[in-house]
Amino acid sequence: MNLPSPFSGIVPPLVTPLTGRDQLDHAGLERLIERTLAGGVAGLFILGTTGEGPSLSYRLRAEVIRESCRLVKNRAPVLVGITDTAFVESVALARVAAEAGANAVVAAPPYYLPEGQPELRDYLEDLLPEMPLPFFLYNMPSLTKVSFEVDTIRRFIDDARIAGVKDSSGNMVYFHRLCHLLRDRPDWSIFMGPEELLLDAVLAGAQGGVNGGANLFPALYVALHQAAARGDFARARHLHDVVLEVSSRLYQVGRHPSAIIKGIKCALSLEGVCDDFMAEPFRRFRPEDRDRIAEVLATLKATVTRALSAPTTA
Amino acid sequence: MNLPSPFSGIVPPLVTPLTGRDQLDHAGLERLIERTLAGGVAGLFILGTTGEGPSLSYRLRAEVIRESCRLVKNRAPVLVGITDTAFVESVALARVAAEAGANAVVAAPPYYLPEGQPELRDYLEDLLPEMPLPFFLYNMPSLTKVSFEVDTIRRFIDDARIAGVKDSSGNMVYFHRLCHLLRDRPDWSIFMGPEELLLDAVLAGAQGGVNGGANLFPALYVALHQAAARGDFARARHLHDVVLEVSSRLYQVGRHPSAIIKGIKCALSLEGVCDDFMAEPFRRFRPEDRDRIAEVLATLKATVTRALSAPTTA
Amino acid sequence: MNLPSPFSGIVPPLVTPLTGRDQLDHAGLERLIERTLAGGVAGLFILGTTGEGPSLSYRLRAEVIRESCRLVKNRAPVLVGITDTAFVESVALARVAAEAGANAVVAAPPYYLPEGQPELRDYLEDLLPEMPLPFFLYNMPSLTKVSFEVDTIRRFIDDARIAGVKDSSGNMVYFHRLCHLLRDRPDWSIFMGPEELLLDAVLAGAQGGVNGGANLFPALYVALHQAAARGDFARARHLHDVVLEVSSRLYQVGRHPSAIIKGIKCALSLEGVCDDFMAEPFRRFRPEDRDRIAEVLATLKATVTRALSAPTTA
Amino acid sequence: MNLPSPFSGIVPPLVTPLTGRDQLDHAGLERLIERTLAGGVAGLFILGTTGEGPSLSYRLRAEVIRESCRLVKNRAPVLVGITDTAFVESVALARVAAEAGANAVVAAPPYYLPEGQPELRDYLEDLLPEMPLPFFLYNMPSLTKVSFEVDTIRRFIDDARIAGVKDSSGNMVYFHRLCHLLRDRPDWSIFMGPEELLLDAVLAGAQGGVNGGANLFPALYVALHQAAARGDFARARHLHDVVLEVSSRLYQVGRHPSAIIKGIKCALSLEGVCDDFMAEPFRRFRPEDRDRIAEVLATLKATVTRALSAPTTA
Repeated sequence: MNLPSPFSGIVPPLVTPLTGRDQLDHAGLERLIERTLAGGVAGLFILGTTGEGPSLSYRLRAEVIRESCRLVKNRAPVLVGITDTAFVESVALARVAAEAGANAVVAAPPYYLPEGQPELRDYLEDLLPEMPLPFFLYNMPSLTKVSFEVDTIRRFIDDARIAGVKDSSGNMVYFHRLCHLLRDRPDWSIFMGPEELLLDAVLAGAQGGVNGGANLFPALYVALHQAAARGDFARARHLHDVVLEVSSRLYQVGRHPSAIIKGIKCALSLEGVCDDFMAEPFRRFRPEDRDRIAEVLATLKATVTRALSAPTTA
Repeated sequence: MNLPSPFSGIVPPLVTPLTGRDQLDHAGLERLIERTLAGGVAGLFILGTTGEGPSLSYRLRAEVIRESCRLVKNRAPVLVGITDTAFVESVALARVAAEAGANAVVAAPPYYLPEGQPELRDYLEDLLPEMPLPFFLYNMPSLTKVSFEVDTIRRFIDDARIAGVKDSSGNMVYFHRLCHLLRDRPDWSIFMGPEELLLDAVLAGAQGGVNGGANLFPALYVALHQAAARGDFARARHLHDVVLEVSSRLYQVGRHPSAIIKGIKCALSLEGVCDDFMAEPFRRFRPEDRDRIAEVLATLKATVTRALSAPTTA
Repeated sequence: MNLPSPFSGIVPPLVTPLTGRDQLDHAGLERLIERTLAGGVAGLFILGTTGEGPSLSYRLRAEVIRESCRLVKNRAPVLVGITDTAFVESVALARVAAEAGANAVVAAPPYYLPEGQPELRDYLEDLLPEMPLPFFLYNMPSLTKVSFEVDTIRRFIDDARIAGVKDSSGNMVYFHRLCHLLRDRPDWSIFMGPEELLLDAVLAGAQGGVNGGANLFPALYVALHQAAARGDFARARHLHDVVLEVSSRLYQVGRHPSAIIKGIKCALSLEGVCDDFMAEPFRRFRPEDRDRIAEVLATLKATVTRALSAPTTA
Repeated sequence: MNLPSPFSGIVPPLVTPLTGRDQLDHAGLERLIERTLAGGVAGLFILGTTGEGPSLSYRLRAEVIRESCRLVKNRAPVLVGITDTAFVESVALARVAAEAGANAVVAAPPYYLPEGQPELRDYLEDLLPEMPLPFFLYNMPSLTKVSFEVDTIRRFIDDARIAGVKDSSGNMVYFHRLCHLLRDRPDWSIFMGPEELLLDAVLAGAQGGVNGGANLFPALYVALHQAAARGDFARARHLHDVVLEVSSRLYQVGRHPSAIIKGIKCALSLEGVCDDFMAEPFRRFRPEDRDRIAEVLATLKATVTRALSAPTTA
């Protein structure tokens, strides 16, 4: 199965359901996949930041890849995060992904010692020839300390192995410049990470979003994308406000950057989708935080249901 | 072989000699080990930042561990970097280290999603029971984005599994507070990372340094440590000035953070010690940079020789 | 003259034309004001970041205020930047502004020692009672080191003295949350600083932009604002692309943050509008940079003219 | 009165005692000056960061300068902070200082729009000819966003108008390189800002410290400086530990960067030295924080007294 062309829509960065250290929650993964596919998503992104990719053993990452591909059964493209500080391991993961039938791989810069832009260029020159699948660049400077600058990406503008870019910088000026690359590569897909900017992104010409909240409310993000893409601005604004409410309420329980993943996993666990075990160094929310998530979740579910059932304008 | 008590002196963070992608330079590693041991170092630290640990495949990391221990033959303690974003892989590396006969392991915080201090505490609580060897905390906030705050470390003040701390923050206020922990744990060893602060560190009560330049000029750093430790302040200041000259000249060829490792590997290659291949995403210096290193190296060697042959004062 | 209600559109942050140290370029200021008013701007903002406010002596700041108000003659509201690290001087400037007939004042947080949010709250509680004119909060964290967090602003949601917010953070997630305040204060005006985000801002519900490029091409920014405000998305996207081209070409000559102001002043000088003397610590562009600006300017003028003369769609 | 040569020792950065907005606490200032002079300090630094210089009106800054010089009566050199974002105001303050009989001026980079190093060079070239008194560079990157890089300072190595450098970066690697400049300018004085690094600084060759805690315990910092300067390392280490205790206890009440100044002013107020009113945007500690300071102060006073009365070793 090739990537569809154009490849657009919502591609949830799936959490990785775990039952314990180094143990995949198989049933949870299946429920999560069925739920998001039923929500109308355009593809699935596994082993990204939300999927705790860098926290998982290689054995487990391979298991997640194989199991996800097996469960998806080509109903939607599977994108696999291969971001790693060890080049050889990224390549190995890409091969596992290709063998398992995944459709693309996604890599952020190696994230220990920060690279200069010429070094990122060298890196891509070394990595791309080893890639058995279409390749997405993943810009995530808050975690990798460096950006793929637009001028750096432009140097690979004719590279047929690249299929697009996922940007999680939150920097809309950068994102606008990124979208200008589509003039020369209309086949690329540019995806927005932070869901609060999904509407801005589609209006800027992007193909879609890789938004954590779509694990929980896939239909909400799909509806927002569709409204924006078809020019129904009033409805898009309304759904965008709901997304802002999800993000401002669900991701603020807990004070550290891990709060987003913990919040999504906790909500999924409350919904009966999957376990909320977190890979070390993190731990699941304690009872008091879980109670707050339960409270927030009840309100949000009502809000989302109401927003989705509203008659489509325009 | 246990860690000596007290464990003090210079412990070079060895570069990892490579002949190509995923290929260890065995002969180079042997020459490097013999050279540093001959320089009087107190131990060897492999697979740290200078050793490009996070850039190496797990297979290669295991090979480096086994081969280093085999070559050292218990002539000095071997400390093994197990820093990783995947908990399970850190534990696996620690086991390889223990089986190979290494003497301690060293870990910085998992360096993708930044942890809050309570999360670092949870992490240590999870990790320490799995450690088959004495454990050093490695504080490296510029690369991991978080510090082991002194209050966090203090919570483990009675933990017999911890053998000390390596601090590469460059923050002397922090370092002074760290050294105060020695009052309660006189058996701990506190090591300074940045070589420009080795003298300050010893005067602050630290046991020694884990200094990159000791790959190249082990005797210089050993002499500086000894002069400072025995109170020969005049000689220590003189050797300290030479170390500052090494760092200001050798590490400034190239503009990115990788310049330090590239500079040391390049100089070692010029000295005939080992190959200067860099693990991806980095590449060895190009000819023009290599020429500049050669020039700098010639001057520095003369300066170091002169400094070391000067009659000991006091 | 009161602020219009609603107060929306483009409010250029005027450069301060100078003929030398502490010397106002009167004729240049007059030409600049006439040019921007002719371009259809909704108001003028003097002594902001682009106006080098913090670099000017108090005597000169008072002169700029009085002279601008005299020249504008109530044809448009004049907003006066009173940002200062000294509270008493901010208050004094606000009084000068009120006496001169200005229409509002604008203040970013005192920018030396960074304030916590409770301290910013105290500051506003102290400052607002002293303000003789409607007050705009100015969020500029890259220069002041702190943000007016949305929760902090919300505490003043009922304060009649506040007329709106100018946000130059470049953070669209923040900006969306800011715009939600308009639900409770529909009389407020929220303005976007970075011109690359003017379109996003209007689509997010903002009233307009305070964009540096409007010193040079006022009609371009006015046209973009109007197209976006009336829902002519195709034309807005087109003009937005021209704005991106202005910003990517005109502001990149020179490597430091001052390059934007130097570039605008240099272009205005080439256009015969005013002198390009910069207040210390900065200096005007040297001949080679001026030549590059001249080259860029020629192209941009043609592009802007073409874009503005295109038939209005929709 | 000229600056002594060499100029070394402790130069407290005096707090500015205030009785209310824009009102100097004359009696408090006199008591503070007498107290610090009695403690043996080498000079006084007014209107620095601790002195809330940038928060004060120009009228008040002039009053502080004149009043301080009048009270000191040439018993010690007075250094005056003229740091400002407005060049013309810095020059004006320097002239007030010269007329009042001060002995030197001190300036950090203008701190609104960050300068590149060539711009800092231009700035010094413009500023130095206007200076009527010996000039100290003040490196304070956490507040000004830029450093005077050592290479930038080196360009002025032959400038007779420069008398030295105060460094508050907390970066000891930088500080060591700074001290190397003394080889070419043995008449310069290099002072350390953060008191936790005073001992390190003297051992690195610096002339002294500009340490906030010396407002409260001048004799402690003077004794530490003297012990370190005469090579009494055991006593210096002991006093250094007391300084660390002051800093870790007194400056940690309150969570924002202002906590240091608030803590010192509060303690001085409890000691009956001066009022603790803070210039806006800050406010004095509330009763509960004041109670904590009172508690900490009681302990610290006992510790300091004990340390100072201990028999001098060596």
